[in-house]
Amino acid sequence: MQRFINDPDQVVEDTVKGFVKAHSDIVRLAENPRVVVARQAPVAGKVGVVTGGGSGHEPAFIGYTGRSMLDAVAVGELFSSPTAKSFHDAIRAADGGKGVVVLYGNYAGDNMNVKMATKLAAKDGIEVATVVANDDVCSAPASEREKRRGVAGEIFMWKVGGAKAATGASLEEVRAAAQKAIDRCRSIGVGLGPCTLPAVGHPNFRIEPGTMEVGIGHHGEPGVRVEPLKTAEEVARDMVKIVLDDHGLPEGTEVAVLVSGLGATPLNELYILNDTIESEISARGLKIRETWIGNYFTSLGMVGATLTVMALDDELKTLLDVETRCTILL
Amino acid sequence: MQRFINDPDQVVEDTVKGFVKAHSDIVRLAENPRVVVARQAPVAGKVGVVTGGGSGHEPAFIGYTGRSMLDAVAVGELFSSPTAKSFHDAIRAADGGKGVVVLYGNYAGDNMNVKMATKLAAKDGIEVATVVANDDVCSAPASEREKRRGVAGEIFMWKVGGAKAATGASLEEVRAAAQKAIDRCRSIGVGLGPCTLPAVGHPNFRIEPGTMEVGIGHHGEPGVRVEPLKTAEEVARDMVKIVLDDHGLPEGTEVAVLVSGLGATPLNELYILNDTIESEISARGLKIRETWIGNYFTSLGMVGATLTVMALDDELKTLLDVETRCTILL
Repeated sequence: MQRFINDPDQVVEDTVKGFVKAHSDIVRLAENPRVVVARQAPVAGKVGVVTGGGSGHEPAFIGYTGRSMLDAVAVGELFSSPTAKSFHDAIRAADGGKGVVVLYGNYAGDNMNVKMATKLAAKDGIEVATVVANDDVCSAPASEREKRRGVAGEIFMWKVGGAKAATGASLEEVRAAAQKAIDRCRSIGVGLGPCTLPAVGHPNFRIEPGTMEVGIGHHGEPGVRVEPLKTAEEVARDMVKIVLDDHGLPEGTEVAVLVSGLGATPLNELYILNDTIESEISARGLKIRETWIGNYFTSLGMVGATLTVMALDDELKTLLDVETRCTILL
Repeated sequence: MQRFINDPDQVVEDTVKGFVKAHSDIVRLAENPRVVVARQAPVAGKVGVVTGGGSGHEPAFIGYTGRSMLDAVAVGELFSSPTAKSFHDAIRAADGGKGVVVLYGNYAGDNMNVKMATKLAAKDGIEVATVVANDDVCSAPASEREKRRGVAGEIFMWKVGGAKAATGASLEEVRAAAQKAIDRCRSIGVGLGPCTLPAVGHPNFRIEPGTMEVGIGHHGEPGVRVEPLKTAEEVARDMVKIVLDDHGLPEGTEVAVLVSGLGATPLNELYILNDTIESEISARGLKIRETWIGNYFTSLGMVGATLTVMALDDELKTLLDVETRCTILL
């Protein structure tokens, strides 16, 4: 295991410490060391915006803490939900008296812990609304969309929710904007190589050399098919087809595109994928308004990439243009 | 080779095409498809700022094109210098009538081609000044600093040079500021795993599992020693020691820190390294003003990280604070 780590059981601890040191102008730790808080939070009279999730997806989730973005983030162990207590503490840290929206991904542990945290917050007198991301098209059929997992579309959801809250909107308005953002997102992942949880010490699943896993999840969840590794052009074409067939957008729709590496994919390969992604999306009569490309939502050292397409409307365009300040260029 | 590529001989072509599509709001291609130009360049009455280098280091070099940053970038084949013609075309694309500064790394091919391009530009009546980055402390002893290679310190050099040019400074003032920036930078790389040139198809050097290469170069150039893989804490301590022993900075000096992944290192491991890097630098009585952390200067899919420390003064602090717009958060 060729990794920069100390005690494998302390990876999250060490990650968060080093992160907060690097970005102390933007974030701080709450009393609970599993909660990262934006320096200016809570902002009186603003809806608080919270997320949380397992570690190992950096810069998600903590890297999106900041101004006009997330006010507080609950940090879980590697690939595991934060505790209900951490979600609760994040909600309290973000609360500026106008309610808190929790924007998180559809995983059993997170669902359970956010639900418990919401009840605890109610006892504090904090009103909480939630939006559950389910943009991963390969994790369940369209007829069971509520079963789908949340993946990189969460970043668009946070950006939209964070921006809406920054405009002074109400809790219901922020919730509705974030819900719309994720409703209009579809994502797919393709894996070329597995990742390793340091405490385990060997890959937690296999991808045979010469093959790829189409539809892989953010923790190596099996996709819809394993097939021989194709060219970047063919892979990109398949990704666009799967995402847009599910999306069913009318011609002329404006979209935002996010191409993210999964941790160990060189950036130039994302550009190579994007060359075809852009052509394929345009060939379907959609208009790409903006493309975000880089390591936005990773899975430790997984080799692979994800594509997210969000269908825009005027409100979403305005919110995407709101200036943010977090640790990533948005 | 588990990679997202098409024809291995077309990697650079495909990379640049996909990059320009993603960032067409910031960059465009020159007539020469091996030259990326900032959309607003050339700016009349502003010193042009140019760099260039081999591909495979994305987001370097092309990703740093933009406002108050690089005006034009010459693109080489993978790990190879751009041609003299491409450097020349980049100089012409950046020329706003006030001269052009070329800020590049100390490699034989780049030195030769920039020199030829400078002569060609002189015939066009364009005055060119150059700064050669040599921040890699392990590539030659301090007594032969002129032999040292340029690595991630180039990013600070570009930021300072680009910002100085944006203030309306003269060619000599921009050159002097960029020269000061790189003179005050020291960098080191540590490699845990090799990278593969797609056209070759197998790693171009070996790092035995369980070992690491201390002082590795950006193309896998051998470092100063191969040793058993240590903990992140020990690695970070060694990196800081090597960089700061060479630097010899007085107590109280303010510094900027850049921790970059080499392409296949998960971001959380850079945070883990930074936890110790920050403590060690502070323990030596230096003051960290800011930390940049992420995949800023990579080497295809190399597993490893670099540390750069730049000693600041008032001018450099002011220039680091100039707002830029390129594809990376600076």
